[in-house]
Amino acid sequence: MRLVQKYGGSSVGTIDQIKSIAENLVNQKNQGKELVVVVSAMGKTTNSLLAKAGSITSNPNKRELDRLLSVGEQETIALLTMALNALGVDAISLTGYQAGIETTGIHTKSKIKKIDSEKLENYLSEGKIVIVAGFQGINEAGDITTLGRGGSDTSAVALAASLGCRCEIYTDVEGIYGVDPRVYPEAGKIKDISYEEMMEMSNLGAGIMEVRAVELGKKYGVPIYVGKTLSDKGGTNIVEKNLDMEEKVITGLGITDDIILVTLKSLKNTPENISKIFEALGDAGVNIDMISQTLVENGGLNLSFSCLDTELNLLHEALSTIERELGPIEIEEHIHFTKISLVGIGMMSHSGVAGRVFKIFAREGIRFYQVTTSEISISYAIDPKDRERTVFALAKEFNL
Amino acid sequence: MRLVQKYGGSSVGTIDQIKSIAENLVNQKNQGKELVVVVSAMGKTTNSLLAKAGSITSNPNKRELDRLLSVGEQETIALLTMALNALGVDAISLTGYQAGIETTGIHTKSKIKKIDSEKLENYLSEGKIVIVAGFQGINEAGDITTLGRGGSDTSAVALAASLGCRCEIYTDVEGIYGVDPRVYPEAGKIKDISYEEMMEMSNLGAGIMEVRAVELGKKYGVPIYVGKTLSDKGGTNIVEKNLDMEEKVITGLGITDDIILVTLKSLKNTPENISKIFEALGDAGVNIDMISQTLVENGGLNLSFSCLDTELNLLHEALSTIERELGPIEIEEHIHFTKISLVGIGMMSHSGVAGRVFKIFAREGIRFYQVTTSEISISYAIDPKDRERTVFALAKEFNL
Repeated sequence: MRLVQKYGGSSVGTIDQIKSIAENLVNQKNQGKELVVVVSAMGKTTNSLLAKAGSITSNPNKRELDRLLSVGEQETIALLTMALNALGVDAISLTGYQAGIETTGIHTKSKIKKIDSEKLENYLSEGKIVIVAGFQGINEAGDITTLGRGGSDTSAVALAASLGCRCEIYTDVEGIYGVDPRVYPEAGKIKDISYEEMMEMSNLGAGIMEVRAVELGKKYGVPIYVGKTLSDKGGTNIVEKNLDMEEKVITGLGITDDIILVTLKSLKNTPENISKIFEALGDAGVNIDMISQTLVENGGLNLSFSCLDTELNLLHEALSTIERELGPIEIEEHIHFTKISLVGIGMMSHSGVAGRVFKIFAREGIRFYQVTTSEISISYAIDPKDRERTVFALAKEFNL
Repeated sequence: MRLVQKYGGSSVGTIDQIKSIAENLVNQKNQGKELVVVVSAMGKTTNSLLAKAGSITSNPNKRELDRLLSVGEQETIALLTMALNALGVDAISLTGYQAGIETTGIHTKSKIKKIDSEKLENYLSEGKIVIVAGFQGINEAGDITTLGRGGSDTSAVALAASLGCRCEIYTDVEGIYGVDPRVYPEAGKIKDISYEEMMEMSNLGAGIMEVRAVELGKKYGVPIYVGKTLSDKGGTNIVEKNLDMEEKVITGLGITDDIILVTLKSLKNTPENISKIFEALGDAGVNIDMISQTLVENGGLNLSFSCLDTELNLLHEALSTIERELGPIEIEEHIHFTKISLVGIGMMSHSGVAGRVFKIFAREGIRFYQVTTSEISISYAIDPKDRERTVFALAKEFNL
């Protein structure tokens, strides 16, 4: 059986961990598996490289930053391959470039354009374990590029797509839980989840897999498994949606802390007005989420949206621009708020989720400040003082 | 003026040092210099990478070791280029491969086969400072290779040869001294030295520049300068020999500590015997030096040679093999001995150096156990207790 496995930075943080993974790979190979292994930089290496760049300049040249950041994975692939060779197993390390990973787009946020897997196929047919540097590729100019946050997940899924095989993501958690177990200790682990749900969960702060990697898996139909490194316990499978899944209305609950909820009140309700507002927010670089609008008595409009606390300065810059153009506006702002989202493809066929949630909120006396919905999710902005109470009540109601 | 400059690991050991070098390069560029800068890994990076490999296996795969060791220079070129960009200067970093450095031979000890400098020429003509990773290249298989001990010197001289310009080697010493100043504090700095003398000095433990780099400089007529990083004091020029140099009989004195001096006594004097001995030593991997032979009364032969203390086990292995083949041999062995060498192209035209040395040894009561000569050097093996006395007496006599 052919497999791509990815081991994250916390799984290869020390030499001893690298040796343990090597031993485990040898056992797997002896069971007849054909293995391509994608690794991240050891532990906090990438952060320490970033700190070095930061002590030179606050705005490092991005081509050079990519070269610097790509160094960590080169170290890991060399060490893991040495460990395999030392165990008497034929293995070879490949940089992103050598593995045929061609990228495009801007430095530090490149995208994979194409994978030329001929070399990989050859090495596999020679019986080698192939160790590939995650997070990196080579662009049209022949320069090393990196794939941005969570890029090694994307490398692994893309390689699995080009090799036509399953992809296993090994990390320091045992799989994906219906609710973050740090908040709701009784949370159950999800055995199977659809790509769509996982994408919503990634977006909603589950933080285990990068959404781009899940999207790529969906696009090429790559079965993905997420589980704990060197653990026998079963993890979570990310697969095409199936009928069993639709039985369950809600698969998971996502928590996003530290959001800002903004309401612009009594706006003049014209398309020009609204477009000017979103243009100013976009120009300032504010990533807006949870947009809703309500008509008010005098024919005007209340417009609400959320963004992250970290974008407060950008937000205020944008609001100044808007007031310069449209005149003074009454603005309501809640910072440090929390967003709670329920995700499930079951919502597409089962109605009534919103009704059940409103009933719980009424019973518990929880006030929500904003609600938005997508086809497979529903999200509420709440005061953080109600966070635990909301999570527990919803998790119990939907059996997460 | 076009220039290749090389900065060693101790010159780029910290972020502050890298920033200082960047400022200095900007000043040089403003004076109209076209600069190609070769850098080593920061400080002790290479040693710490070697230690990581060592904690995985005592015998790491050499291809993987090369990948691991080449990481340090990639870090330095990215950081130095960022520092230059942050100062508003156009600069670009190139790995050995991107700089067109093609290598051949075994991993960890590769040799430069060819440099394709088209890319370098283009960047220089665009007014960029080009920062190149030393110590590395790419082989026929497309794998990263390293050039062995002192490899960055070799990278720099080879680039200068291919660009047809001067090469400046910056390090933590002010140039090359006639005698190691730690042993003989009155030692004078050498202003000009010939390639040949420098090669003898490198071999003899001066330890400032790798002999391969000097050899390459001689082959392609590259003028080389060796001096202290960011210092105004003049260093040493390595150039073609000239008449001025020949005026001075001796240019430098080299000291090699911790050698073993071996004498095999009363051997049967046949070519087969002698060749068997050298074959066994070669097979065991002993690097022999200072070979001499003397006939003894009974028609037999005494054969003497030296090697390094670190090769003691290999030596004993070889001697066992020799005794198995030739029968028991009377062996005299001195360990921890010292070799003192006088180097000077003046010796070619001036005779009488050996005579002057013997006179000094007699006057000072210094015993030498072995003497060997080359065209431009003469070396003596002495007891280490006489080391300082010998160095001071010879340095005074020859005004070093």
